[in-house]
Formats: sequence, C-alpha cells, structure tokens
Amino acid sequence: MTVDLSYSAPVRDLISKTRAFTREHVLPIEDANSGDVTAAGGDELRIALQRAAKEAGVFAPHVPVEFGGHGLGMSDRAPVFEEAGYSLFGPIATNIAAPDEGNVHLLAHVADDAQKREFLAPLAHGEVRSAFAMTEPAPGAGSDPSALRTRAEKVAGGWKINGHKWFITGADGAGFFIVMARTSGEPGDRGGATMFLLPAGAPGLEVGRHIETLDRAMIGGHCEVRFDDVFVPDDAVLGRVDEGFAYAQVRLGPARMTHVMRWLGAARRAHDVAVAHVAGRAGFGSRLGDLGMVQKMVADNEIDIAATRALLVRACWELDRGERASDSTSIAKTFAAEAVGRIVDRSIQMCGGLGVSGDLPLARLSREVRPFRVYDGPSEVHRWSIAKRAVGAAKRAAREGNRHG
Amino acid sequence: MTVDLSYSAPVRDLISKTRAFTREHVLPIEDANSGDVTAAGGDELRIALQRAAKEAGVFAPHVPVEFGGHGLGMSDRAPVFEEAGYSLFGPIATNIAAPDEGNVHLLAHVADDAQKREFLAPLAHGEVRSAFAMTEPAPGAGSDPSALRTRAEKVAGGWKINGHKWFITGADGAGFFIVMARTSGEPGDRGGATMFLLPAGAPGLEVGRHIETLDRAMIGGHCEVRFDDVFVPDDAVLGRVDEGFAYAQVRLGPARMTHVMRWLGAARRAHDVAVAHVAGRAGFGSRLGDLGMVQKMVADNEIDIAATRALLVRACWELDRGERASDSTSIAKTFAAEAVGRIVDRSIQMCGGLGVSGDLPLARLSREVRPFRVYDGPSEVHRWSIAKRAVGAAKRAAREGNRHG
Amino acid sequence: MTVDLSYSAPVRDLISKTRAFTREHVLPIEDANSGDVTAAGGDELRIALQRAAKEAGVFAPHVPVEFGGHGLGMSDRAPVFEEAGYSLFGPIATNIAAPDEGNVHLLAHVADDAQKREFLAPLAHGEVRSAFAMTEPAPGAGSDPSALRTRAEKVAGGWKINGHKWFITGADGAGFFIVMARTSGEPGDRGGATMFLLPAGAPGLEVGRHIETLDRAMIGGHCEVRFDDVFVPDDAVLGRVDEGFAYAQVRLGPARMTHVMRWLGAARRAHDVAVAHVAGRAGFGSRLGDLGMVQKMVADNEIDIAATRALLVRACWELDRGERASDSTSIAKTFAAEAVGRIVDRSIQMCGGLGVSGDLPLARLSREVRPFRVYDGPSEVHRWSIAKRAVGAAKRAAREGNRHG
Amino acid sequence: MTVDLSYSAPVRDLISKTRAFTREHVLPIEDANSGDVTAAGGDELRIALQRAAKEAGVFAPHVPVEFGGHGLGMSDRAPVFEEAGYSLFGPIATNIAAPDEGNVHLLAHVADDAQKREFLAPLAHGEVRSAFAMTEPAPGAGSDPSALRTRAEKVAGGWKINGHKWFITGADGAGFFIVMARTSGEPGDRGGATMFLLPAGAPGLEVGRHIETLDRAMIGGHCEVRFDDVFVPDDAVLGRVDEGFAYAQVRLGPARMTHVMRWLGAARRAHDVAVAHVAGRAGFGSRLGDLGMVQKMVADNEIDIAATRALLVRACWELDRGERASDSTSIAKTFAAEAVGRIVDRSIQMCGGLGVSGDLPLARLSREVRPFRVYDGPSEVHRWSIAKRAVGAAKRAAREGNRHG
Repeated sequence: MTVDLSYSAPVRDLISKTRAFTREHVLPIEDANSGDVTAAGGDELRIALQRAAKEAGVFAPHVPVEFGGHGLGMSDRAPVFEEAGYSLFGPIATNIAAPDEGNVHLLAHVADDAQKREFLAPLAHGEVRSAFAMTEPAPGAGSDPSALRTRAEKVAGGWKINGHKWFITGADGAGFFIVMARTSGEPGDRGGATMFLLPAGAPGLEVGRHIETLDRAMIGGHCEVRFDDVFVPDDAVLGRVDEGFAYAQVRLGPARMTHVMRWLGAARRAHDVAVAHVAGRAGFGSRLGDLGMVQKMVADNEIDIAATRALLVRACWELDRGERASDSTSIAKTFAAEAVGRIVDRSIQMCGGLGVSGDLPLARLSREVRPFRVYDGPSEVHRWSIAKRAVGAAKRAAREGNRHG
Repeated sequence: MTVDLSYSAPVRDLISKTRAFTREHVLPIEDANSGDVTAAGGDELRIALQRAAKEAGVFAPHVPVEFGGHGLGMSDRAPVFEEAGYSLFGPIATNIAAPDEGNVHLLAHVADDAQKREFLAPLAHGEVRSAFAMTEPAPGAGSDPSALRTRAEKVAGGWKINGHKWFITGADGAGFFIVMARTSGEPGDRGGATMFLLPAGAPGLEVGRHIETLDRAMIGGHCEVRFDDVFVPDDAVLGRVDEGFAYAQVRLGPARMTHVMRWLGAARRAHDVAVAHVAGRAGFGSRLGDLGMVQKMVADNEIDIAATRALLVRACWELDRGERASDSTSIAKTFAAEAVGRIVDRSIQMCGGLGVSGDLPLARLSREVRPFRVYDGPSEVHRWSIAKRAVGAAKRAAREGNRHG
Repeated sequence: MTVDLSYSAPVRDLISKTRAFTREHVLPIEDANSGDVTAAGGDELRIALQRAAKEAGVFAPHVPVEFGGHGLGMSDRAPVFEEAGYSLFGPIATNIAAPDEGNVHLLAHVADDAQKREFLAPLAHGEVRSAFAMTEPAPGAGSDPSALRTRAEKVAGGWKINGHKWFITGADGAGFFIVMARTSGEPGDRGGATMFLLPAGAPGLEVGRHIETLDRAMIGGHCEVRFDDVFVPDDAVLGRVDEGFAYAQVRLGPARMTHVMRWLGAARRAHDVAVAHVAGRAGFGSRLGDLGMVQKMVADNEIDIAATRALLVRACWELDRGERASDSTSIAKTFAAEAVGRIVDRSIQMCGGLGVSGDLPLARLSREVRPFRVYDGPSEVHRWSIAKRAVGAAKRAAREGNRHG
Repeated sequence: MTVDLSYSAPVRDLISKTRAFTREHVLPIEDANSGDVTAAGGDELRIALQRAAKEAGVFAPHVPVEFGGHGLGMSDRAPVFEEAGYSLFGPIATNIAAPDEGNVHLLAHVADDAQKREFLAPLAHGEVRSAFAMTEPAPGAGSDPSALRTRAEKVAGGWKINGHKWFITGADGAGFFIVMARTSGEPGDRGGATMFLLPAGAPGLEVGRHIETLDRAMIGGHCEVRFDDVFVPDDAVLGRVDEGFAYAQVRLGPARMTHVMRWLGAARRAHDVAVAHVAGRAGFGSRLGDLGMVQKMVADNEIDIAATRALLVRACWELDRGERASDSTSIAKTFAAEAVGRIVDRSIQMCGGLGVSGDLPLARLSREVRPFRVYDGPSEVHRWSIAKRAVGAAKRAAREGNRHG
C-alpha cells in the first residue's frame, strides 16, 4: 500500500530476454559496422534483425497486443527499452526506434479503425517504416511549433498541402508520413494545425537530401522534404481538423521518455566499456580504476545513470496514470539529455587516446548522443517551459493572497 | 502490478497535516529567530513545539506504533519528513531531528527490551534527547570509521571507556549517548567496535565546548566529548560486542536518507522564497521571473528537486525491502547534498542583495546546508565507495571471462 | 618590445612588504576575532592597524603621491591588493577597503581642488571613512542603476535631497557620503543623475539599521540611509550636474577590479589553509593530499587562482591605458566572483568537518565571499552586458555585409 | 616599467595578415571539404596552401629567421597562431601544424648543425613533414612517459631500435621521425630515454594503419608504427644519449601552448558562427540572441575565450623568459582544453538542429576539439602534476616550520 518499484514477472522476463538478445545478436553487428546503420545494410539489416527479434520474443514491446506486440505501458517500457538501447541498433531490431515508436503510440491513440488497419498494423509489424513531418527550416516550425508554415488548403474531397520540412527522420524509405500542416490561422498562432496521413510516393511529395548530422544510427536519414500541391483525401486527416498541436502533445510526452530510455541504454554501454577499461589497465603505478580522479568519473557516471532512471520512473508513472506530465517529462528529458552527454564524455576521458579512437565505441556514441540535447526540444526550451509554470504558479499564489509552496 | 509511486490515504493525510503544521506553527518561529534554535529557546522551545505537534497529530512519524509513533517505513517517511524539513525547526517539532531520529531507528532494530524501555521509549516520546558519539579528531575515526581510537576495556561487571570525540551533535543536554568504542583490534582494523548506551552524567564523561559551525539549527550543538575511565555495566552493550561497525551501517543508510528528506524540504523552501521574489519583482524592463537567466535558475532548481526526490524514492524502496542499499543511499546522499547546495545558492542569486541579507531566510539556509556535503560521509568518500563497487564488479566480470554489464 | 608581465623594483618591494605586514600583523588579529571587524574593535582597530601600516610603509598604495600614497596604477595595484586581501582585515589596515578605495579613485578623477582638500585628503590619510550612496530598495536603483528614484531638487544656493537608500556600505560612522540623486528625468531614464558630497551629520540625513548580511568584515555595516529634505550647497556637486551615471562608470570599472584583487587574496588564503591541511593529514591509508579526488580540488583551485589573476592583468592593463574596459572588467569580475566562491568551497570540502567549523577560517571566508557574486553587479547582469555587446557587434557586421569575426 | 600586453608593430602586422589570409584563402577550402584534409587533397593541398602563405608573407611565423621564418617567440606566436587556427587548415598552410611545429622548436634547440641542415631546414621550408614517435600502446608510454618500452640497443656504429608506437600523428607521409627509445633502465624508470632522427623508408620501419579518431584535420593520420631492428647511425642521436625525457620537456611545454593557440582560434570561429546565427535568427517572439539563456551561452563563451587567452599570455611570457613554466603551461593547457570544448558545445547548442548538422562547421569542430583533453597529457595528468607541486610545497613549508603561502 505504498511505493513499489518492482516489475511483474512477465516484464522481468522481457527485460532479461531483451538484454540477452541485444548483447548477443545486435551488439556485434553494430560494432562490426562502427555504428553506421546505412553501411551495415539499412533496411535490409533492419528486416533481418527484426526477424531475429521476433524469434527471440522481444519484438515490439510497446505495440498493443491486438497488433502483435507486448502491450507494455510506459513504466514497463523503461527497463525494456533501456536494454534494447544498449546497442545503437537494438531499437531498430525491436521496432522501437524513433520515429516509428512514437508514431505507433500516436496512431494507437488517435487513428480511426481504417487508419489503424492501413497504417498502424504494417508499422507495428515492421513491414514499413514511417516519418513524422513537423520541423521546418527557419522561420518555420522549429523549437517553437506554433511557427508552422506548411499549409493544407481545403479542396474538393480532401486537402492540398504545400510546404517545406527538414530534419525529417527516416523520411528516405518511409512507407508513409504523418504530416503536420496549418489548416487555419497564421504562423505564430498556437492552434490551427492538422495531422495528415500520407503514403510515400504521393504526387508532389519530394524527399530531398539527407542532412548530414553527428548521429548515424537512424535508418532513412534526417531529410529535407517538400510538398508541392500534394493532395490527400478527407479520410487522411488523423483525428480532427485543427487539433494537430494537441495530438503532437499526445505524441511528444511519451516520445521524449522513450528517447530517454534508449539513450540511457547507450550511456550505460559507454560506461561499461570505460569501467572495464580502467578495471584492467594500469598507469602511474596503480590500476587506473583505483586512481581517485578516475573513481570520481566512475561514480559520477553511476550517479547520472541512477538519477536519469529515477526521473524516468516518475514521468512514466504519471503518463501511465493518464496525466499530461508536462513537468516531469520535461525535467526527465532535460536532465537525461545532459546526463547522457556527460556519461559518454567521461567514459571517453577514462579511456584516453583509445577513447577518441574507433577502437572503442565511445567516439561514435559521443556523436550519437550530442543531438539529444537539441532533438525533442532543446534543453533551453524545456527549461523555459518548466520555469514559466513555476513562476506562473507563484504569481497565482501571490494574487490569491496565499502563502506559496 | 507494476511501478506505483502513490501513497496510501493515511500517509497522504499525514503529509498534508505535517505541511500545514510546519508552515503555520513552526515557520513563523524559525523566521522570528533567524533560524537560531538556541536563541529561540533551545529545549524549552523544543518541548513547546513537540506538544503542539502531538496535538496536531504529526508527532513522531517514524517511531514504531508501540512507542507512540506513526510507524512509517522509509518510503512513507520521505514526503512527510520533507514537509517537516520545510522549516529548520520542523524536524525538532516532530521529533525527527538528527541524531535522535537515527538513534530511534537504531534502538528499534538493535536494542533489547530493557534497553528499549529505558532508552527508546523516552526518546520516542520526546522526553529526552540523545547523542551518537562516533566521530573523533584526527587521527581517529573521521570519514574513515575504521580509524576508531576510543577504547572500552573489559573490567569486572562492565567496561571502562577512554577516548575523545568531537562534532557530537546534540551532546549538550542529551539524556544519553550511544558511544562507539573499540573493544578489540587496532585503529585501522575494519572490525572490533562496540556500541554502548551511556546515560548523561556518568562519572568521567565530560561534554566540552560547542564547536562553532556554519549551521545553527541543531539543539545541543556539535560538541567535544571526553571519556575518562567511564564505567558502563555489561547490560549497556547495544547488541553484541565487536559488532558496532555493522550496527553503524544499520543506522547510517536510513539516517542518510532522512537527512536528505529534511534538507530537501529546506531546499524547497529556499526555492519557493526565490520564485515568489522573482515572480513579483521587476528589473531591466521585465519581471525578473521572465528573464531567461533567471528562468534557467528556476528550472535548474526544479530539476534538482525532482531528481533528489526521485533518487530518494528508489533508495527508500530498497531499504524497505530489507536491502542494504549501499549504492542507492550513497548515490542519493551525494546527489542530494550537492543539489541542495545548488538550489539554495541559486535561490540566493535570484534575490540579489536581499538574498545575502537577513531579510530573507536564504543566507541562513545556505549556512545550514553547506555541511551536508561533509556530514554523513563527505561526497568524496561516497564517490569512492560507489566507484570501488563498480570497478570491483568489472574486475570480477573480467576474471569470469564474462562480458561486463 | 613584446608582452611583459614583470613589476618594477619598487612595486616588487611593496608587494613583499605588504605580504609580510599582512601575515605578521593583521592575520593574527583577524583570526583571534573570527573575522568580525566590529567585535574586533571597529574604527578603533582600524586606526591602530593603519598606524602600523604607515610604519611598515604599506599604507595607501593606490592614493596619489601628492596625498601621501604610493600612487600605483591599476596594474601595479593588483599584486599589492591581493597581498593585503590575504587577511580580511588587510584592506582596512592599508586603507584600500571598499568603499573608501573606490571613493578615493573617484575623487582623484572628478573632484575639484577644494573638494579634494576637504574630502579626498582626510580620506586618503585614513582620518575619516566614507560611503557611496547609490543602491535603493525596489523599485529603485538596484542592479539597474537607471531606476534611480532619490531626487535632488534645485533650491536657492543648492539642492534638496529626498530618498531612501540601502546596502550602503560603511554608512555607520562614515565622515561623508557621495550621494547619487536624480536631478532630471524619470526612473528608467539612462541620464539625469548627479553626485553630491555630503558630510555626515547633515540635517535630515538618517543612517538606519545595519542590514544583516553574510559578510562581517566591513566596518560601518551595510545600512539603510534616508534623506529627508537634506540640503547641500552648490559646491557639493561632484563634477557636473546630470553627469552622475558617467562618473559612476569611472568608479565602477576600477572598483570592480580592486574587489577582485582583494577577494583573490582571501581565496588564496583559503586555498593555503586547505592545502596545508591535506598535506599533513592522513586518511584511508594515504595522506589526504595524495588522494586523487583531493588532488583534483587542489588543482582546480590553482587553475581558478591563475585564471582570475590572468584576467585581472588584462583588465587592469586596459584601464591603465585609459580604456573603458567594459568587457574585460565585466569578464574578470564575473569569472573571479564565481572562481573565488569555488575556491573557498573546495577548500572547505578538503577539510571536512573542520572546514565547516570555526576552528579554521574557511567557514567565515565562505560567508564573506558569497555576496561578491551579487555586489558590484550580479553575474547575470554582467553576462547580459557582455552578450549584448557581442550580439550587437554581430548584427552590425551582418548589416555591413562583412564576414564577422 | 610595468605590465605591458601590447605587441610590436611587425607582430601586429603579421597578426592582421594572417587573419586576412586565413579567412579569405583557407577557410573557404576547409568549408568546401567539410574539414577533411585528406579528402581535400592531403599533401597536395598542403603544398598549394603553403605556397599561397609564402606569397602572403605569413608562412612559418615561428621558424628562426636563419631558416626563413619570422622568428617569433612564444608570446608573439600566440595571437598569430590563434588567427591561423581560425581555420582547421590554417596551421597546415602556415606550417605551424602539430607535430611539425613542435619538432621545429625541438630541433632548433637541440639539434647540431648537420642535423639542422638535414632535418630542420627542409621541415622549416615545408619541403617535408615529420612525426614525433613517443606514444606506445599499453603497457608502454602513454600518459606516463616513463613506461617507455621501445628500446635502442648499442651496436657497432649506431643503434638498433625495436618497438611499437601508436597515435603517431602525421606518420603516413612523414619525411622523418623523431623516435623516443629507451637506451638504459627499465619501463617505469624516469630516465634512460634517447631521441633519434630517423628518415622515412629506413629498413624495418613500418607505418601501419591509421587509427580512426574523432579529428580529421591532421595530414598523415594518427598511425601505428613498428620498429623491427631498425638501424640508425650514431649521428642520428638528437642531443645526448639518455637525455630524451629532458628534451621531451623542452618540446612539450611550448607544444602544449601552441596547441592552445590553434584550438583557441578554432573555438573562436565556432563562437563567431553561433553569435552570427543568434544575431540573425528569431524564435519565441524574440531574436534568439536577445533571449537570456542564449545570452548566458554567448557570455560564457566570451569569458572562456578571454580566460584562455589570458592564461596563454602568462605561460608564454614565462617560457620566453627561459622558465620551465610547468605549472603555467599545465594550467593553461588544462583550462584551455576544457574551455574550448565548452565553447564549441555551447555554439552547437545555440544553433539547435543546424548546430549538429553539416550545414554549419560546428559539428566537425566538436569532433576536432574533443581529443584535445586527451592529447598532450589528459587533464587528469596535468591536474595530478599541479596538485603534486602544490601539496609538495606545503609539506616543505610545514617541515621548515614556516607559515605556508
């Protein structure tokens, strides 16, 4: 009748299977390909890995049972996703990689039955990949989604979309897109957006260049995408017209947390590599791992890992209760993104020259995790939101003549 | 059948009553006396506050029910103690101040029935205060308890204690002492210590000067204590001879966590004061609370508070399950001690000149919390323990030819 | 014909004498009185110490030669003031304490001959102390001086001042005040202020309570001061009417740097105390000073000391060349205030329980230095100024079609 | 007759020419090749750039005048190298890239006349590149040079070298190697090393794989190099036998500082790119550069740049005076390596998604600068040295019964 942090037996079983599968089947492939998923085979690799994951019983932990998954809630996803994230390719193998995982979540909550059959089912089974097309180049929707400029105009039987997106993860090779477009109002307005389901290959849809970024472990790149009079029928509207920003929130809170889960796995791997290194290597007359400055780095990694995990537990529990969890997900995401960066950085430092080399996975992990402080809302934007709520509450308390707290 | 972070209805009720009691009855007295408990009346104040706490139904949340308390476990203590800690005098009022609270915990676990009647009962009811006499000046037991030099020699019918302790919190006015003395081995040995129960006023026991420290909110000071051929009978041995270090562990893990709970309350108060300030005050053409650099401080405080609380949840849950929880309590204590320092420091900074003045409680809160990074094990010692376990595990894994993780 | 960081022989001699004087004559008095200058005798102590300083040939290093000082420029002051600052009472002894030192600087630059005779001469010789009355309670002049609300109205033969100041350092017992009052415009205007020279005891001038603050080493407190129809004659105007903000700048740049010099001395003392402690004390089987985590703190202190000193060299050189040095003084002040705080904090941590006690000077040094991040412009305000200049320069570069750099 | 931070007219002229040359001729080539010097043409590019630098009068600022350079001392090098470092290819163009620049310095100080003609002259003119072969894989010479295991055995007429080196920068394509080998004693001894001059192509010398590292801007890679009974004649000894560690010190202090100069230029470029971005880009209703959290990052960059430069001034001045400058170079290197990392990281963060993309140079700059905290002595080793000296001085002071300071 009080706090309980334990997991049920089936979840513990899935954690343990995912752990074994990731380390035995996935990690060697990541390492052999220096973490470059395209070089490793791209979608071909994905299909092979997903087949293996299905056989191992670790595929699609988050997908609703009726679509073939394990149906885990957010709290239960945390340790499972962390295990999958231990390899950069683990999320691909278990079908929990961004953006597909967030899109599954969104479709499960918002799509109608026909849309679920057409889009959610194949995505859940790994038959297709998907993309979420929201971000635009300046002065469009970036950190501030209300700046949205891509427009969908009502035409007979549907809508005509025009606009320019970029940093659209997984766009190259995606089976379909969830497109955010403005159906009313002007850039800067906090409403008026609608989500559309758009199959790849639609006339007027052009997937452009891959924007080169520090990270390499996402299939289908971070692409520029242009919409030139792209027609979508009325039944392509996801949910209701003009409610797109609200649905984006449905997607964003959980998507932030699953990002944290996966990156936490990657950070843990970096830490394990470094600790194994210093446990075995001697220098200055001592084992490196017995030197105080190295011990400080080891301990700080442990603290960062524990704190990230603990914040995740809180945020997931709130989400599972149906709360919006704006504060707890912003806090967990901001802390985690910075903690994960620190962990990988310290891990590199513990390994010295080897740490910055390709002989260990740390250098590539550092490239992978850096963008996490920008993607899904830069730390500054989350801090701004957190502070606005706190200061706003204090103002209200002052107005009400109440003692604040 | 998964993670649950909710509290039972009686605990929620106690949280809410403790919150109201602390803010309405205790905080005004702390503020009127600038947080100096001695100036405010010392034990006289304590007795009055404890009477009020009993009337309010918030006295002794941690004390076993058979001794008149609420019998809360560690997990449930966390939010209650945090509310009491919102005022520096709140722990005194609710009888959860250090070192009494830890001594109650220790006696409840280790004392025999007679000892419980003689020592635990009056302590639990607030009739006496107590002290825990372990720390010694260099080269004795400091951060490294194994350096213990105070000795107890077996004599007819009992033991004779000789030694010199310092930083003994609450010694002046304590009704009894729990004394840690070496009964076998030499300084540096990791065993050979025994705990003794010693009533105040015993011949040869001398409570010396109050060591002046940054903090002022503890009754009875941090004193030097000398033992000059102090006799204790055989039945004064707490638990078993030579098992003192093990019992110290029983006390230390939970005592660390209750420290965190109380200081978290203090940090939250600092934050609330600062946020209320910036929510109301204008500068540079904006409300201070709308300036980005202030928002950053507000958000970082919120993050530190949330992370501290989340780590506490984890450690308390482990302790409630009967685990030793060495890692999770060291991690929570280390993170919390530093986070609490940061929170109070940022709160001061947000309030500028007022922040360093006696017109707000922040300056005194900064003095109170600084020692927390030293008391109960300096951060460096905790980091050293955390790292030793992590590196040790990696060495074992390497020896076993296993992949580490 | 290139960079030269050496000092002339007379300056080296003054450095060395100041060092000896501070450590042999001043430090023991500070330590015997726990750094509380009022408890140590206040002005009586000051007079005795200054007599000794004169005998030692270390009095008034900054005062122009014609007023009996050594006439050092900013660059040469740096190492001398640092040595005096090694004791909290050293600046008082050598007559370089705030606010007198800054007022000497201001008067030397702005006062007319009669004013110099009446005000500068006795101040330079230590016959009187002075105060600088600028800061006001909200919503008046705080971090943002343009909010100035104290007014001086033109009346026959002079001016009538009304207003409320606070945090006026040294006000209690000051021989005269330099008062900043608005002679035109409205709060928020960036001009319209005038400085007036006002002898203590003027009718309508009331020095109120000492605002309790963390620091204790300044004679005459940080006081509230009220001006109720205080009359000053026309020749009490310092410099020209409505030019007060410009003169404040003349005073502020150098005053910031001399603050840094003095605090750097205090930080160095904290560091020396801590290093001596860890060099002598054993723990965990090693000398503390040989443990890696302690070594890290020692090294970080050395780095912070070196960087502070190096930034000071730069800023002082610019000031000596007659530059406004807004950037370099803001940078040096901001870095130094934070570095000094870190140094003292690490020094405490290295000494553990002793560090937070009155048995070492560290706890009081921590109280003294905390306000430095607020006084003379909070770090946030300096960062804001630094950033505005940098971003402004980038905007101009963009407008001019130039490549920025 | 006091501190002077100005540069002579010829140096100011060279600064300004180097600035113009780097930005106009070199930067566009770096940007067009994403900073990958091998992709950009390797040595062919180097030769073309160096020809242009000679024409621009900015070639070889550090080379003694008799070998065709500008003959600048360390202090004067600082601003010139910083300007060259503004582009990653700038040091190559001006012939001041590592390891050649350090090797020029070493040869100018230690080589005899014949060696100068044979090795220094062509290196100084850019006719060949060189390598410095010291670092070995564990358990050989890494952060701790005394672990040196490569051996040179005396044979008739010369020496026979056997060993294994790695992370040998520029080895692939180098015209000659300076090889550090043990001529007496055992690994762990602090003496017994000798430097040898070895032309490329010597029998038994094998340049192996390029170790992949985060950085890409160094010609000739970071290679493994093996010595298998490599013969060198007696006159290949650089300086005296068994004095290699001392010469390494001659090289290391200045080489650390020139590294700092170059990386400071790179950091400044990152900062300029970011400030230009936020000065032009709008978000959340403000120009990004006017948002407080962005301003904080801008100001912290400015502070880090100023502090790095100031520490460099100090260390270079000491080196120019002929001091060993162990402390000041360790302090400057440690601070700079971390500051440069922070500057580039904040610059990325200011640019959001663009920051982690290849559309700006920031992502590649982050890869380039990360190893700087490892190369030339990891920060931990420098901190260890700094602390050892400080603690050692305190111990000596205590022994001498002196007051420390």
